[in-house]
Amino acid sequence: MRILVTGAAGMVGRKLVQRLARDGRLRGEAITALDLHDIVAADLVSIPQAETSVFVGDIASADTVDMLVSRRPDVIFHLAGVVSGEAEANFDLGYRVNLDGTRMLFDAIRVADYNPRVVFTSSIAVFGAPFPDVIPDEFHPTPLTSYGTQKLIGEALLADYTRRGFMDGIGIRLPTICVRPGKPNKAASGFFSGIIREPLNGVEAILPVPRSVVHTHASPRSAVGFLIRAAEIDGETVGPRRNLTMPGVGVTVGEQIEALERVAGSNVVSLIREVPDETIWSIVKNWPTRFESRRARELGFKAETSFDEIVKVYIEEELGR
Amino acid sequence: MRILVTGAAGMVGRKLVQRLARDGRLRGEAITALDLHDIVAADLVSIPQAETSVFVGDIASADTVDMLVSRRPDVIFHLAGVVSGEAEANFDLGYRVNLDGTRMLFDAIRVADYNPRVVFTSSIAVFGAPFPDVIPDEFHPTPLTSYGTQKLIGEALLADYTRRGFMDGIGIRLPTICVRPGKPNKAASGFFSGIIREPLNGVEAILPVPRSVVHTHASPRSAVGFLIRAAEIDGETVGPRRNLTMPGVGVTVGEQIEALERVAGSNVVSLIREVPDETIWSIVKNWPTRFESRRARELGFKAETSFDEIVKVYIEEELGR
Repeated sequence: MRILVTGAAGMVGRKLVQRLARDGRLRGEAITALDLHDIVAADLVSIPQAETSVFVGDIASADTVDMLVSRRPDVIFHLAGVVSGEAEANFDLGYRVNLDGTRMLFDAIRVADYNPRVVFTSSIAVFGAPFPDVIPDEFHPTPLTSYGTQKLIGEALLADYTRRGFMDGIGIRLPTICVRPGKPNKAASGFFSGIIREPLNGVEAILPVPRSVVHTHASPRSAVGFLIRAAEIDGETVGPRRNLTMPGVGVTVGEQIEALERVAGSNVVSLIREVPDETIWSIVKNWPTRFESRRARELGFKAETSFDEIVKVYIEEELGR
Repeated sequence: MRILVTGAAGMVGRKLVQRLARDGRLRGEAITALDLHDIVAADLVSIPQAETSVFVGDIASADTVDMLVSRRPDVIFHLAGVVSGEAEANFDLGYRVNLDGTRMLFDAIRVADYNPRVVFTSSIAVFGAPFPDVIPDEFHPTPLTSYGTQKLIGEALLADYTRRGFMDGIGIRLPTICVRPGKPNKAASGFFSGIIREPLNGVEAILPVPRSVVHTHASPRSAVGFLIRAAEIDGETVGPRRNLTMPGVGVTVGEQIEALERVAGSNVVSLIREVPDETIWSIVKNWPTRFESRRARELGFKAETSFDEIVKVYIEEELGR
């Protein structure tokens, strides 16, 4: 079992690689090779009896993707991408990495002609306001960001390339991953993690939107669980609709803060400072709120069931308490 | 008012050009220039006081689209494309023309930085089975053909390029255009026209699917009406959801034949011969049936109200009776 992870140096990529190293197996088979690709060097892990390699390069380069695919990975986790804020700020970069990079990878797989499982991380950013209170699985995607547009196009390509037998793809629309460890990235959704992470680390956090904002979250641990499930699931069971909205915990920002207070106390919560930011608000207000995610749940994708759990996962994984 | 029509030698393109020549005006302004582009030479029309030009070239060529856009057309009708059967048979050609060609055109417009109205012909092929009985405007597109996938990607690009202010796009999802004049093309939907057109011309027609098949149609005249409406409509009124499902007449094949009999008599209908074709049936059975098209109707897009009317439009326009 050879595995390729693109975007392996990113937050979700790193956690996926750690999980793969810990499990040593995927789809019931021992991992014998693990190829890690990113624009910067991913951390090498060691897996007994497995060859692990790190590749640094541009995903939107035919040479790079041809080389990666020529090694014929059985499972490809395609996580590489430019985040939402950056794709909006830099039109060319977003389309080049998120659209051209994905299409080049899929085309290299098509030409290699061996039908691997491809797990593609899409996003709930494929949806755009106005929404019903709960977005059903059959709701139309009308993205209001370039990032969401690029992810939607990746989904469409994945479904068609799968239908034509070039690959065996599963697209998973991730909700906001929370609590992200480490430093903020350029995603407009950064504050959803920041208001939990910074106070837990004794640092002040800025809340740029109203407490009434509703949003759906899953922990990085759940995100990795989605990826593993997507790698293992039987494609026949999924059928031709290969892009699935992942489950998550739908809460208001106020409820996030209440959960933090329950888990960590009022001193921690007092480090959150409300400083409205019109730019962030103008992006966030067009984001979807709650999802039905019926198909994904039926297909065995599991998230946390409360935001308290999400806070605890962060404390356990990142603060070691 | 300078107008560019891509795919101007195609059936809908030709009829659009004839209508533009007849009207001499669009959006309340006199047409002063009409640029007709296709892979083969489109028929030149004459419009008093207007310069008309014919360009022959590949739409998936940056040189071609740059040249066309450098003339700064105020309205661009982007009809060029490879039809469904051909896009399915020739994967590379379909993606090159329908995806790369469209993206190159939109990118040339983006770089030219002058925000023209762009009318893009999409298709109900963006939808894939299973469906509800009537497909609402907010139903998710899950195409089951490469053609539908390419059209969906064109829609996504159109919406994003419009949102970012690069162009002022309107995408119209055409139902099956019926009755197509002339010879059959490679579209799997060809028989929907053939069973009306051939008998009216005294020729036997093959019906490859069961009479119970439900499908939605609009005449070529209505298709041109949709295009004109899409060119003239106020973008603000449409809002950010720029891709609209056009109205049409939803009928069974049996009802099509009954309408033909009412309009043209039983001798004509006796020329239809049922010869089941599994290949065509396997494509057609995944096609959508009826549409709500609420938004399009509210926005003033009009189709026929019965299939009898559709038969009569063909007789009037093509047989001159």
